[in-house]
Amino acid sequence: MPRFDLSPAELREYRPEVAEPADFDAFWARTLAESRAVGQAPELTRVESPLALVDVYDLAFSGFAGDVVRAWAVVPAGTTEPLPTVVEFNGYNGGRGLPHERLAWAASGYAWVFMDTRGQGSGWGTGGSTPDPHGTGPSVAGFMTRGILDPEQYYYRRVFTDAALLVDAVRELEFVDAARVAVTGTSQGGGIAFAAAGLSEGLVAVMPDVPFLCHFERAVGLTDRDPYHEVERYLAVHRGDAEQVFRTLSYFDGVNHARRATAPALVSVALMDPVCPPSTVYAAANHYGGEASVVEYAFNEHEGGQGVHWERQAAWLADLV
Amino acid sequence: MPRFDLSPAELREYRPEVAEPADFDAFWARTLAESRAVGQAPELTRVESPLALVDVYDLAFSGFAGDVVRAWAVVPAGTTEPLPTVVEFNGYNGGRGLPHERLAWAASGYAWVFMDTRGQGSGWGTGGSTPDPHGTGPSVAGFMTRGILDPEQYYYRRVFTDAALLVDAVRELEFVDAARVAVTGTSQGGGIAFAAAGLSEGLVAVMPDVPFLCHFERAVGLTDRDPYHEVERYLAVHRGDAEQVFRTLSYFDGVNHARRATAPALVSVALMDPVCPPSTVYAAANHYGGEASVVEYAFNEHEGGQGVHWERQAAWLADLV
Amino acid sequence: MPRFDLSPAELREYRPEVAEPADFDAFWARTLAESRAVGQAPELTRVESPLALVDVYDLAFSGFAGDVVRAWAVVPAGTTEPLPTVVEFNGYNGGRGLPHERLAWAASGYAWVFMDTRGQGSGWGTGGSTPDPHGTGPSVAGFMTRGILDPEQYYYRRVFTDAALLVDAVRELEFVDAARVAVTGTSQGGGIAFAAAGLSEGLVAVMPDVPFLCHFERAVGLTDRDPYHEVERYLAVHRGDAEQVFRTLSYFDGVNHARRATAPALVSVALMDPVCPPSTVYAAANHYGGEASVVEYAFNEHEGGQGVHWERQAAWLADLV
Amino acid sequence: MPRFDLSPAELREYRPEVAEPADFDAFWARTLAESRAVGQAPELTRVESPLALVDVYDLAFSGFAGDVVRAWAVVPAGTTEPLPTVVEFNGYNGGRGLPHERLAWAASGYAWVFMDTRGQGSGWGTGGSTPDPHGTGPSVAGFMTRGILDPEQYYYRRVFTDAALLVDAVRELEFVDAARVAVTGTSQGGGIAFAAAGLSEGLVAVMPDVPFLCHFERAVGLTDRDPYHEVERYLAVHRGDAEQVFRTLSYFDGVNHARRATAPALVSVALMDPVCPPSTVYAAANHYGGEASVVEYAFNEHEGGQGVHWERQAAWLADLV
Amino acid sequence: MPRFDLSPAELREYRPEVAEPADFDAFWARTLAESRAVGQAPELTRVESPLALVDVYDLAFSGFAGDVVRAWAVVPAGTTEPLPTVVEFNGYNGGRGLPHERLAWAASGYAWVFMDTRGQGSGWGTGGSTPDPHGTGPSVAGFMTRGILDPEQYYYRRVFTDAALLVDAVRELEFVDAARVAVTGTSQGGGIAFAAAGLSEGLVAVMPDVPFLCHFERAVGLTDRDPYHEVERYLAVHRGDAEQVFRTLSYFDGVNHARRATAPALVSVALMDPVCPPSTVYAAANHYGGEASVVEYAFNEHEGGQGVHWERQAAWLADLV
Amino acid sequence: MPRFDLSPAELREYRPEVAEPADFDAFWARTLAESRAVGQAPELTRVESPLALVDVYDLAFSGFAGDVVRAWAVVPAGTTEPLPTVVEFNGYNGGRGLPHERLAWAASGYAWVFMDTRGQGSGWGTGGSTPDPHGTGPSVAGFMTRGILDPEQYYYRRVFTDAALLVDAVRELEFVDAARVAVTGTSQGGGIAFAAAGLSEGLVAVMPDVPFLCHFERAVGLTDRDPYHEVERYLAVHRGDAEQVFRTLSYFDGVNHARRATAPALVSVALMDPVCPPSTVYAAANHYGGEASVVEYAFNEHEGGQGVHWERQAAWLADLV
Repeated sequence: MPRFDLSPAELREYRPEVAEPADFDAFWARTLAESRAVGQAPELTRVESPLALVDVYDLAFSGFAGDVVRAWAVVPAGTTEPLPTVVEFNGYNGGRGLPHERLAWAASGYAWVFMDTRGQGSGWGTGGSTPDPHGTGPSVAGFMTRGILDPEQYYYRRVFTDAALLVDAVRELEFVDAARVAVTGTSQGGGIAFAAAGLSEGLVAVMPDVPFLCHFERAVGLTDRDPYHEVERYLAVHRGDAEQVFRTLSYFDGVNHARRATAPALVSVALMDPVCPPSTVYAAANHYGGEASVVEYAFNEHEGGQGVHWERQAAWLADLV
Repeated sequence: MPRFDLSPAELREYRPEVAEPADFDAFWARTLAESRAVGQAPELTRVESPLALVDVYDLAFSGFAGDVVRAWAVVPAGTTEPLPTVVEFNGYNGGRGLPHERLAWAASGYAWVFMDTRGQGSGWGTGGSTPDPHGTGPSVAGFMTRGILDPEQYYYRRVFTDAALLVDAVRELEFVDAARVAVTGTSQGGGIAFAAAGLSEGLVAVMPDVPFLCHFERAVGLTDRDPYHEVERYLAVHRGDAEQVFRTLSYFDGVNHARRATAPALVSVALMDPVCPPSTVYAAANHYGGEASVVEYAFNEHEGGQGVHWERQAAWLADLV
Repeated sequence: MPRFDLSPAELREYRPEVAEPADFDAFWARTLAESRAVGQAPELTRVESPLALVDVYDLAFSGFAGDVVRAWAVVPAGTTEPLPTVVEFNGYNGGRGLPHERLAWAASGYAWVFMDTRGQGSGWGTGGSTPDPHGTGPSVAGFMTRGILDPEQYYYRRVFTDAALLVDAVRELEFVDAARVAVTGTSQGGGIAFAAAGLSEGLVAVMPDVPFLCHFERAVGLTDRDPYHEVERYLAVHRGDAEQVFRTLSYFDGVNHARRATAPALVSVALMDPVCPPSTVYAAANHYGGEASVVEYAFNEHEGGQGVHWERQAAWLADLV
Repeated sequence: MPRFDLSPAELREYRPEVAEPADFDAFWARTLAESRAVGQAPELTRVESPLALVDVYDLAFSGFAGDVVRAWAVVPAGTTEPLPTVVEFNGYNGGRGLPHERLAWAASGYAWVFMDTRGQGSGWGTGGSTPDPHGTGPSVAGFMTRGILDPEQYYYRRVFTDAALLVDAVRELEFVDAARVAVTGTSQGGGIAFAAAGLSEGLVAVMPDVPFLCHFERAVGLTDRDPYHEVERYLAVHRGDAEQVFRTLSYFDGVNHARRATAPALVSVALMDPVCPPSTVYAAANHYGGEASVVEYAFNEHEGGQGVHWERQAAWLADLV
Repeated sequence: MPRFDLSPAELREYRPEVAEPADFDAFWARTLAESRAVGQAPELTRVESPLALVDVYDLAFSGFAGDVVRAWAVVPAGTTEPLPTVVEFNGYNGGRGLPHERLAWAASGYAWVFMDTRGQGSGWGTGGSTPDPHGTGPSVAGFMTRGILDPEQYYYRRVFTDAALLVDAVRELEFVDAARVAVTGTSQGGGIAFAAAGLSEGLVAVMPDVPFLCHFERAVGLTDRDPYHEVERYLAVHRGDAEQVFRTLSYFDGVNHARRATAPALVSVALMDPVCPPSTVYAAANHYGGEASVVEYAFNEHEGGQGVHWERQAAWLADLV
Repeated sequence: MPRFDLSPAELREYRPEVAEPADFDAFWARTLAESRAVGQAPELTRVESPLALVDVYDLAFSGFAGDVVRAWAVVPAGTTEPLPTVVEFNGYNGGRGLPHERLAWAASGYAWVFMDTRGQGSGWGTGGSTPDPHGTGPSVAGFMTRGILDPEQYYYRRVFTDAALLVDAVRELEFVDAARVAVTGTSQGGGIAFAAAGLSEGLVAVMPDVPFLCHFERAVGLTDRDPYHEVERYLAVHRGDAEQVFRTLSYFDGVNHARRATAPALVSVALMDPVCPPSTVYAAANHYGGEASVVEYAFNEHEGGQGVHWERQAAWLADLV
């Protein structure tokens, strides 16, 4: 994929107007309050594993509407003290997989928690195990358009609520230092991290990596790659619904969540990314409510900085915790 | 797509063993009984349209679990007498669209009813309007793997029940001659037609056109084209679930439904069809419980006979009604 | 296909200079006169069909050079009075197919006539039956470059003449009200409709839907999709022929035909159309000689508005007839 | 393209039954006689060129129906004596191009004549200049289905006649030794060479290189690559025409022409050729009426042996002339 | 990719004849002896990292011809006792990347050593840093055909020697228990593991995962996917070199190396693997010189079992060490 | 490929700043001097061939570091006098092939010499036979990134040196008029021709045809087609190396070599060329140090003018020699 978006100089200054509904804060305050009202205490179950250096737990917590959502929690073996903690969200259609697959944060002395994205986890990797027990109106194959005509019914209302409630739940765990919780994630996980950052108080750091779910009005039509393209296909069939669809999406736009976040942020962007175009990432980073640093990967597509970027994150986070 | 399946001679004799669960009939009897128990009378609403030669109705009926499902009903203008009726089901991810898009049956003097497939209708065409208000476990993008670990939860349990209950509902309409109801459909619609044929009594004819949803154990892995391929991708992630998945699918296999059907059938098959391979179609046709004629389209892929086949169907059905 | 053409605001003002040969009108006047001179009266033959609500006719009329061209004529059953009439032209490489495949206009009370495009009809659908008994110089596979070095020999000279003479012929039919004839068509059919509109007198309406054959100098090289791309491939081989080729095409450019048309027009354009780029459609619409309304489909590719647009056309046309 | 056809051992023995019409010889005798009856003497025009070592001529001869067909004739500069001669036919949709592009035969001391394939020459390379002044019924884009419903009207009737009449014409040239004329060609050119070999008397050698146009009933449906695939697409639309189409093709099948040829033949075949599958080539080679050697290129697709094979041909032919 | 290779039942019995050069053992004995003769002691350099739970080392050892080759060595933090050790080789065109990217073995209490494949490491991931300071004859892009005309010059002679010498080097490290060294790798890494197993003494286990580099004569031509396809392309140009090429490859065929291996083996195979077709994997497993278990992934392509298979390996290996 | 680069008007004025290292001339002077110091006299061996009109020689000359590089030399049969000479370089991954494949220059009375590109010659055609006996650091498959971190080690340092030394060698041949040597080549061959033109004295003409290897900083990222894309993939893995990579490439940039060339040049450019974008070609042509004419092929992709352009070259060169 060659260069197709704004030039590097333009990107760094790109701060577009992005629509925000008047009741954005009220919508989310109500949403979180309703789900918190029906939630229960998280359950932590020790899991046997060959991983001698770490302790592995299956974490079951109450997400949207009290639905049980699962996560892995992995900590250095024998941890008894509260640790700085990294909460991670996953990319599109991946599940939490198996705990041995992502060990770098725990091996670096953090408590690491990895959320299963409800309903997803069958597209690649080793699977997920959290259902999404809510139906949907007509939708394109995929998750992007489930319930897209109504913010109340939209799929990501449930996912973002899960994410915010996972931050709550994690803070109740005895091996977590509630004052030192960071959120991170790649692609969809980065978009969820922006949302968690906007919806949670007192995070120590936010690390969205080539984040998805930002500046939908630009993204839809700028790229023909899924998942943004799912919205385009929906609108190609439901020809009169564009206004309503983009109104729904405005409640979930990473730009609007980023505006409300205040913890220090380290954002990555890949300048040839055809999946999450760089201008959509910069739109969120440049509107970020706190201090945000952006790391550019000039010749990468959506894979971004991969392990190189993790080293950047690890060094940056170490200075904050 | 060149020839890739059995030879024509082999196809015509192909009658494979297909697994059938011991409680197949009990499962479906219970399923239909439960949904019928919560159903309500169908509602017919006249729709304004420029189509002067026909009357158009929006039909809302109670499908699975009493969910409201929509359909179009189109009849010759001013119909007052019960007519022979064609109930049609749609292809994968299409919706019922707009009533002027399929006028041939009504223009030929039939009452024509076209079911909206729940949750679908956003993939192509002009849309659908029936939600699927039931959640799902982790699934591949698409509809094929929603709830696939449990026959009770499987997506097509709801769709096939909708289809059978639509036959019930249609028979209550005053412009329908309940003794002369035929079912038809192309691709997914053909698979649903087989199911409706196996689950309904007293149909006058069954016309599956290049039907999907037949002989899953052969189809999955024989073609790399969606929708069968969705199951393969699910199993590629959920590596231990093949037995459970195929057990679920056995309740929905067109072969097993075809075995129970008795009305005369006209089945079409395209010999170069990479989506619904011809051997999977012949598997159902050759196991059909009544008299089944097969029309072969030797050089067609999944488009099959198109309008040419409709003329075959129209002539064949005219002799039966 | 993401957005690739002018912005919506630019499109609406786009009114490019398009070359027009000095003898454009003389060329066409002579062409039509010569073919009219050798024409014979149209022949209408009733066709048996299961379509009880309509009467179906095979219409054979004299097209270019007196060649026999076929069309379907379908009218409400038992029509005896002159009706408002819709003459429709088909998309690239489609044939007139079977009469039951397009019933909406006749079912809405119009006489509907559907022209077979000479030589075409073997690319998709259910076929055509009109030969093109004229040879060609070297040409790319397809129809776009047949005779392209000479306006006299160019393929579309024959097709556009067929279209204009079909309007003549239709007006001789007893079930047609000659004062209320509209022309329409999708893609290539839309381009032919522009030509018929420019070459015929007294049409009541013109409805080109995502029209092809407009503003060749921009289209060739803007898209790599056939059929415009056929011209590019021809010029890639015949490296010195660009001037001559574009001179030929200027006689057939929808922009030049649109300039001469005066009947009210309803034009559709799909803003992500990679086959008939939106700027080429707007070029014709913005040069249209009469009143032209444009309906935009913002998220569609070449499929455009499909059945949704037919409803727009039907409502718009009803007000005119 | 991996191996997909018969095994090498099976190929070498493959001698399928191929349908041949009873009037095959009568058809061709009449065809050639009619065209010969209206033909005129070939015209040879010296062409200026920078090619000092050879003399270049534009050859215009009378082909099918007396149509003027062009060819290049290139001979060693100053040739005054009759030379052994190679007549070459071109691949699909190529033209005769420019004389400097193929110099190997003339540089080896042969008179070399390269026929322009009528109507072709716009698909690749540097072009052709021979029109095909005969119309056609509905056809797929390309040349394979022009007039395919009737052997009299079929495109290759004209091309094969051109080829046989070119052999006639060449023998009239003073720099040609009429007793030492060989025919050759690659792909379509190889198929034409088989036809020329079957239709001409007294050739010294025949060298079809990865020949096309052989064993149509197997080829159509075995490969999804054009040009054979053009026939499949035609039959996919014209669903009832298979018998008639294959009857037409039987007059043009390289197998049937090969049966009638008697000059020594050197045939090449590429075992991974997805365009001209090896079994279709062996079908013709194994039915060849004279002595035929086959050179296999085991790991090549349709490019075959390229320049390596020309060296094989040159050595083989040198022994015969 | 649908099923394309032998059936599961055939695969399990597949034990083809595979050519083996008479001097296979002599070739390798000499090769290893020569390189050992010029080798130097491995150098281990502690690397700073945020990974608190493990110690990370850069290991530089003498590979083929004494060339310096790099590896990562990662052990539980503070390890002082010899540990069971896993030596891992990488997939095609990947480098050793960064040490935090693969932590599962070290986190499970093993010393883990990961070899950089010489010259590779620029195709994906986070890079490699080992040059291949040896030239090559003409080769296809990629590594498969470098020096392929001569076993002495062939690229994998250097790589396999590196692998065997890494096993030597690892046994000299103080944190390694020389009697409990296992080798593993995925794809190319699995092929190298077979070679290391055949060339090394006293390994405790061998775990090739969807191994590449097995049964070349079948693989080349069975799949059109790289890297096997590189050989096919080479042979398509070098048309006379097949015998010599396959002779070279016979020294490197995983089947021949597997025959000589004796340590217990756990082999994985993906039944729909288009890159390393299952029959080529079974060919090596069924010829394996010791006890070999095969784990099948029935619906996977080349990704195979991924993290699920690592759990299988970890459990299996724990029983052996 | 549609238009994607600058407009024709912009292209003709495009004269970008291109980085040039301060020691460019010193680097090349030293490089050539070192290789000349170890070179030996060229060896010319007569080759048997059926090509009676020309004499064919295998030319072995000393290239970079004294490595033996091969070329074909072809001259009119019996040449005894010094002739004007064309030295040609080949496209990416092609070899010198067989002498009969390119006869136009020799047939026009020139001595023609065609260099084998070291290490290449296995990608297409009939092969090469010159090894590249120098190793490389980690590289992407292909030749573009071999040694790319260091100008001393970069692959094209060897190739460009070969080219300059071939000009030296050719001038020693008795059938060559040293004062009338021209260089030419297509694609990669055109880039090498620019380099040879900048590094050699006293050439009579330079004819780069759709040249590659020009203006790397623009090319990498503007096109996603190999070979430029190889550099992009390298940088996507080696995320910190861009500065060093582009510094290396600046020694090899056709723009910098063109600046130093003084012989008259005829450059071709294809305006839709996605492999060697037209702006990169114009960058070199507009910086050319002597008189440069540019021939545009407006509708061509990377095939450019093909045989049509050869005629342009032949006429242009004839005026100079």
